[in-house]
Amino acid sequence: MQEYNAPIEDILFVLNNINSKVENNSDEYSDPDLRKQIFEEAGKFASNILAPLNSIGDKEGITLENGVVRMPQGFKEAYSQYIEGGWSSVAGSKDFGGQEMPWNIVGGLNEIWHAANMSFSLNMLLTQGAIEVIEAYGTNEQKKKYLPKMISGEWSGTMNLTEPQAGSDLALLKSKAIPNRDNYKLYGNKIYITHGDQDMNDNIVHLVLARLPDAPEGSKGISLFISPKNLINEEGEISEKNDVRVVSIEHKLGTNASPTCVLAYGDNDGADAELIGEKHGGLKAMFTMMNNARLNVGIQGVSIAERAYQQALNFSFSREQGNSIDNSQEGTVAIIDHPDVKRMLMDMRSRIEAMRALSLFTANELDLSKNALSAKDKNKAQENLDLLTPIVKGWCTDQGVLIASTGVQIHGGMGFIEETGAAQHYRDARILPIYEGTNGIQALDLLRRKLTLDNGNVFKRFLNDMRKDAKECINSEKDKLIEIGDKVIFAINTLENTADDLLNMWKDNKRNAASGATPFLDMCGNIFGAWIMAKSAIKAYHLLEETDGDKFLNEKIETAYFYANTILETSLSLKNVVINTHKNLDSIFMNMKN
Amino acid sequence: MQEYNAPIEDILFVLNNINSKVENNSDEYSDPDLRKQIFEEAGKFASNILAPLNSIGDKEGITLENGVVRMPQGFKEAYSQYIEGGWSSVAGSKDFGGQEMPWNIVGGLNEIWHAANMSFSLNMLLTQGAIEVIEAYGTNEQKKKYLPKMISGEWSGTMNLTEPQAGSDLALLKSKAIPNRDNYKLYGNKIYITHGDQDMNDNIVHLVLARLPDAPEGSKGISLFISPKNLINEEGEISEKNDVRVVSIEHKLGTNASPTCVLAYGDNDGADAELIGEKHGGLKAMFTMMNNARLNVGIQGVSIAERAYQQALNFSFSREQGNSIDNSQEGTVAIIDHPDVKRMLMDMRSRIEAMRALSLFTANELDLSKNALSAKDKNKAQENLDLLTPIVKGWCTDQGVLIASTGVQIHGGMGFIEETGAAQHYRDARILPIYEGTNGIQALDLLRRKLTLDNGNVFKRFLNDMRKDAKECINSEKDKLIEIGDKVIFAINTLENTADDLLNMWKDNKRNAASGATPFLDMCGNIFGAWIMAKSAIKAYHLLEETDGDKFLNEKIETAYFYANTILETSLSLKNVVINTHKNLDSIFMNMKN
Repeated sequence: MQEYNAPIEDILFVLNNINSKVENNSDEYSDPDLRKQIFEEAGKFASNILAPLNSIGDKEGITLENGVVRMPQGFKEAYSQYIEGGWSSVAGSKDFGGQEMPWNIVGGLNEIWHAANMSFSLNMLLTQGAIEVIEAYGTNEQKKKYLPKMISGEWSGTMNLTEPQAGSDLALLKSKAIPNRDNYKLYGNKIYITHGDQDMNDNIVHLVLARLPDAPEGSKGISLFISPKNLINEEGEISEKNDVRVVSIEHKLGTNASPTCVLAYGDNDGADAELIGEKHGGLKAMFTMMNNARLNVGIQGVSIAERAYQQALNFSFSREQGNSIDNSQEGTVAIIDHPDVKRMLMDMRSRIEAMRALSLFTANELDLSKNALSAKDKNKAQENLDLLTPIVKGWCTDQGVLIASTGVQIHGGMGFIEETGAAQHYRDARILPIYEGTNGIQALDLLRRKLTLDNGNVFKRFLNDMRKDAKECINSEKDKLIEIGDKVIFAINTLENTADDLLNMWKDNKRNAASGATPFLDMCGNIFGAWIMAKSAIKAYHLLEETDGDKFLNEKIETAYFYANTILETSLSLKNVVINTHKNLDSIFMNMKN
Repeated sequence: MQEYNAPIEDILFVLNNINSKVENNSDEYSDPDLRKQIFEEAGKFASNILAPLNSIGDKEGITLENGVVRMPQGFKEAYSQYIEGGWSSVAGSKDFGGQEMPWNIVGGLNEIWHAANMSFSLNMLLTQGAIEVIEAYGTNEQKKKYLPKMISGEWSGTMNLTEPQAGSDLALLKSKAIPNRDNYKLYGNKIYITHGDQDMNDNIVHLVLARLPDAPEGSKGISLFISPKNLINEEGEISEKNDVRVVSIEHKLGTNASPTCVLAYGDNDGADAELIGEKHGGLKAMFTMMNNARLNVGIQGVSIAERAYQQALNFSFSREQGNSIDNSQEGTVAIIDHPDVKRMLMDMRSRIEAMRALSLFTANELDLSKNALSAKDKNKAQENLDLLTPIVKGWCTDQGVLIASTGVQIHGGMGFIEETGAAQHYRDARILPIYEGTNGIQALDLLRRKLTLDNGNVFKRFLNDMRKDAKECINSEKDKLIEIGDKVIFAINTLENTADDLLNMWKDNKRNAASGATPFLDMCGNIFGAWIMAKSAIKAYHLLEETDGDKFLNEKIETAYFYANTILETSLSLKNVVINTHKNLDSIFMNMKN
């Protein structure tokens, strides 16, 4: 039995049937056969190479000896194969050796990599982000210097934001950049640097936020710098080491094979660095990249949930315990026979399908925002992307934690034993609601920057688009689809009322509205998830009319039906939580320090 | 700053104001001053001795060398102090040196011990259970032989149930007991034996389930045996080692300082053992004890939640990050100022207060079931206890996991770093929904054995008692209390309808009903929690009339109000989940192995 099988059929279903086509001739990746081929190759690499290393990496962890960080056994070799397979270059621009695959394919691939081995794949996630920044903000010279080797995978990239006193609040950061000839010298300590050092890449291109001497205080005085681990000579080759030192690696709850480093810049004569983008414009550049990173972290939520689901499902067929509750089978049964176990598995699967569809739909909006034919379509896609990004990040990662926890539960006592492997997913998942902006920050972003867009009309326009799919379900004349459609329409109406109330609260009293931001994000996630399951179900229904019955398509209607009947139901009551939370929130904690 | 402060005021509030008095002259522990003194002493021991060892134990873990299990540094010394303080003997019977404190006090103490150091306190939890079994089923000779040293704390006790093929399903167990002179020889392997070996006690009294040669198959052929680690001579002193061997200790997700052992009985000439209770009556004896153990595990859910809450609360006052959302403060603020952080803390606190009140109320029903004046009152208390036990076990442990996870979230990036300590609670908590019967098993117990009692009338009688407290809130003429009372009445009515529907489903189709068991337990927990918060609030209101304003009492009304406005709201929608889950649960997983 393989440890992980990439859910290729479901990924392709979303890409081919749910996502609108990017009507641009340049999209050579819209051919379903080519897509299938890409995902099948990726699935093999994930199952055969990356997945078996996941547990090895967790047990062995990272070592730091004499300032050198070493990855667990097998990781370096797997990385070579990753490069050889061309996987490092899928997203990069063709000008520098990339394949320029659209984000909906890259998103699907990312789901697979992170499900197979999250610690390994964080390297690629950060490198992808760094490439994006250099593509968007680098000079031609910088692009030529860094992009080819980063896209080929020879060099990796990192993001250096956090300092001990500056986490979510980057305005507080203190690292300094001092002009030095044509460039800069960097000084300061950075923490939580994912893959900040390791032995898989020849060089590591650090993107570092720091302040110039003439910088204004706060977030408007932050600039972005490139400061590689090893300096690069005029021939573009690695020369001497830069003045960047690994101070320590963190002992974490999870992702044990992903080195999380404390880096010291400029312990000696300063770390050589180049400015990228405008002076004092560092946060803008970082946030451009961070939006894609947020989408990718949401996808990691799908990954960990899928991995936990597959493991729990396999266990439930092999573990025999207890008798059939209605004596429908003789003797001891596999635990999948117990309705409560089946409930947990059906719940996991329905949520995961909704999360996958919503995250890959969002990835496609990113593609459309760049490549749709008309400016109007681009603009609409950009609005959708802006709206959906915090929801995908917040909701899919919260779900990832819950689903990994359910995976442990299905294993019973064995779930608590590390050897079983279910616990690793529960540990690994826990970082997802935290990094790339905590989910509380996502919720606030949704409220103050997204819901408020055009006085709530962007949000309403999206809800109206959702209603169309639900109405198509109602018009289908199939009972289950009609029930799904009715429930989704009701939920959309409830969500619209809630959004109206919340927007009014925001205008009246920001503090009160902010109290309801997280339950509102949760409500949006659950209901958007129900919508995209309805959209999937009606699509499956139409596709079934053309076929002689298909297991996958029939099951899609069932998971959508289960979702609408259970998960969606619980989201409706969040309306009152959104509205009520502020009522006496200041009654206790204000007085505690009196 | 202390790592943990026992929530004595809230525990005493429940004991003195929520729980009905056990109207039996023998209850010398009903004096509020004496109760206060007991909890204050316990609080000191917990804060000063046990709590600081919690993180040390987690980091250091357990060692097994040459067949000997060693606890982490400091544990043995702490255990000596635990005995010296008289804490081991609180629950034991006076005939054998115990203090016979009622269970509502013992329950409060258990909350404190497990919050301070769950791994350490599991020793005492198992010993308490073993003492109960010997008190209830042992011969006079067995009682004299074991109880004095177990109650004094010199010897500990364990429960040996699980075997690799027999976890939740004990009918499958294979360990054998062969008659040998007046006693028995035991043969077999047992797994997951909590504190199965360690170096804090001079002897360990194992209670072991095994089959006699003439035993019928299945659960009716299981007998219970006492088989100590070290044999006891006629003077009652330890003589030679028994034939019990520690095969290995488990590497677990959490409770790293609690040794979870694989024990081999009878590797050589068989482990000496005595039968306790009737032949083939082992499961009955085990389940007697297990019911109390389930209540205690529910209390562990309160413990871990309280510990996580205190840590997150302290962090939220010290961590400065971001600006005030409405600019009500200048500059960078402590994160407690952010509404979303405050929401998480208020949510944690409200849930914890409800969990504490419900679990200590249940402990008091245990006392009443034994010591109420009339047979009728005893019977009613026993019914309440039976009904509440699976709810306290299931709901409080699920909440424990969620609250520990919220505790990590409040810490942001630091929450994922093990050094911070928040992650330990998230890991430790995860065993609670699993052991002493998974929460799925609790939910099924609630449905098939408790809801069905007297055709649902026991459940309805309890709901009617709940309504009285809610009505008292409505009659109070204080707006917040009226709102709480109205919401609680509405929720009780919804729950009653749901119970009616579920009971009818159970009569029609057991499989369908069982699909809704877990959401039903969740709904009961949330609504019973809302009721006991309402009961607490109206009590606080009346007490306030006698005082000049009291911070604790005022805050009790606020947490009850928050609970009714948020947590209670989300529980109402569970009605449809209970009823809908079965609808297409067999649509997918039945076909998977086709």
